[in-house]
Amino acid sequence: MDEFKVPATSANLGPGYDTIGMALNLFNNFKVKKRKDDLIKVKVIDKSNNDHVLKLNPANDLISLAYKSYFNFINQKASGVEIIETMQTPLARGLGSSASAIIGGLTAAAIVSEKVIEEKDFIKLAVLLEKHPDNVVPALVGGLTINYNCNEDYSYYKINVSQNISFVLVVPDYELKTKELRAVLPDKITYPDAIFNLSRTALFTAAFINNEYQLLKKAMEDKIHQPYRKELIEEFDQVLSKAYEWGAYGAALSGAGPTIIAVADKNTEKIAEEMKKPFKARNINCSSFILKGCNYNLYEYLKGRH
Amino acid sequence: MDEFKVPATSANLGPGYDTIGMALNLFNNFKVKKRKDDLIKVKVIDKSNNDHVLKLNPANDLISLAYKSYFNFINQKASGVEIIETMQTPLARGLGSSASAIIGGLTAAAIVSEKVIEEKDFIKLAVLLEKHPDNVVPALVGGLTINYNCNEDYSYYKINVSQNISFVLVVPDYELKTKELRAVLPDKITYPDAIFNLSRTALFTAAFINNEYQLLKKAMEDKIHQPYRKELIEEFDQVLSKAYEWGAYGAALSGAGPTIIAVADKNTEKIAEEMKKPFKARNINCSSFILKGCNYNLYEYLKGRH
Repeated sequence: MDEFKVPATSANLGPGYDTIGMALNLFNNFKVKKRKDDLIKVKVIDKSNNDHVLKLNPANDLISLAYKSYFNFINQKASGVEIIETMQTPLARGLGSSASAIIGGLTAAAIVSEKVIEEKDFIKLAVLLEKHPDNVVPALVGGLTINYNCNEDYSYYKINVSQNISFVLVVPDYELKTKELRAVLPDKITYPDAIFNLSRTALFTAAFINNEYQLLKKAMEDKIHQPYRKELIEEFDQVLSKAYEWGAYGAALSGAGPTIIAVADKNTEKIAEEMKKPFKARNINCSSFILKGCNYNLYEYLKGRH
Repeated sequence: MDEFKVPATSANLGPGYDTIGMALNLFNNFKVKKRKDDLIKVKVIDKSNNDHVLKLNPANDLISLAYKSYFNFINQKASGVEIIETMQTPLARGLGSSASAIIGGLTAAAIVSEKVIEEKDFIKLAVLLEKHPDNVVPALVGGLTINYNCNEDYSYYKINVSQNISFVLVVPDYELKTKELRAVLPDKITYPDAIFNLSRTALFTAAFINNEYQLLKKAMEDKIHQPYRKELIEEFDQVLSKAYEWGAYGAALSGAGPTIIAVADKNTEKIAEEMKKPFKARNINCSSFILKGCNYNLYEYLKGRH
């Protein structure tokens, strides 16, 4: 029996659409046991939802798909395995639950096969399933990552996240599918909107490298996805106002939402409470997390095992 | 008689379209003398072109316009003045000659009026004349700046440029007007192209803050202006190949071109020579400069005078 954990992630963070992602210290735990037969058995227990056991379609759950794609890549028949994931990350809320499942499945395969493929191939397999790199990469290597494509591959630049800064995440109790959230985006972007985001993404990078969080109010602004997506998350502007009112440095959608993330170094409990109010006013339940960045590198751990 | 100098600037630098700009240690020198009468007399000597004296239309040369806009802003009648600019920056080649004229005119007005307006207002006046902030801001404050709009104003984040790194600039002997170079751009940008530039701009920022220049080969790639503009600068791809072949970290158009800038810390003379070859092969004369970043802050100097 092997055990490892994969962090939750928050992507986009305002301007860094499909580019920036960050690992958080909220973990999904994976237990992995090789089986004597050929069966691939996956069980997912959702701790964020009363230990509810997820109904999975064994043919296409992301953990199995990732597990099999790894064996396929190393040109080996997939060994039988039992994988139990205990999720702390709420499902389909913009906290990287699917990235976590993918990285979990790939890591399980690396452990069971006792073969650790190159990092770039590991990332490539993950992106093939997830379609974009900004959740899977920080889930695998930790920290805040700038993710970029290199021809057919993906690479990243990792910024370690200071432990002096906190992330307040407010998670409303409704699900938004990434597919749906992508459908609301226009086909193309104007130059002024692109320039707006270019400048904010550069500023965001500087803020996290130099720990200058007072830049984040500007650096977490966005014109290329949030203005469209907030049509589906009506409370968005109010929640951001609450966060700023109570001293957050910056706030934005986490991934495609509906979770909203704020960055702060004080009053975090109060900020969480206040950010929930606009949702509560519309009778939408919500939970919150106060987290730190997670700089743990799961890929390094895997390499170290062998 | 007062004297000051304004640095040349290189903007865009690949992905940071209308966002990133850098001051270089090639200077345009300004001599300013208050006149007893009301006349505004401007003379510009182009040192990069055999001390040629530019023909200016006194009604709309940028130095006079900037000078008058400053007095207008402080609600004072413009004092008579004699301004002599001695340019080292070649005209209309993508090295910020117009930004330099604007900053020169504004600075002359600040000196003559003995009133230094707030930095944000200074920048606003400059952007009003230049239309975008990425040359005028580094010309005024030095360094590598991330420029961003804040409602009606512009702000910036300054990164001091290491003196261990050099910039090779190859300037072909033909003029391209920014207007023309903007006209070749499409109306809008696709999401994949925008994401491509977002990631490179973040990476570029990290490279310069952390002095990790090996990132620049990726970080100076661009999909939103260079692919279009290189239609007007046929030698572009070849010149870049030469730069990389001889060890440059990264290379891109300087501003809208036609100047091409490469970043390197060795073989700079050789890189310059090789980068010129594709131009020479087509009988286009070109000059080159090997420069350092300029971190000098002209605005601070102005504040310090009073």
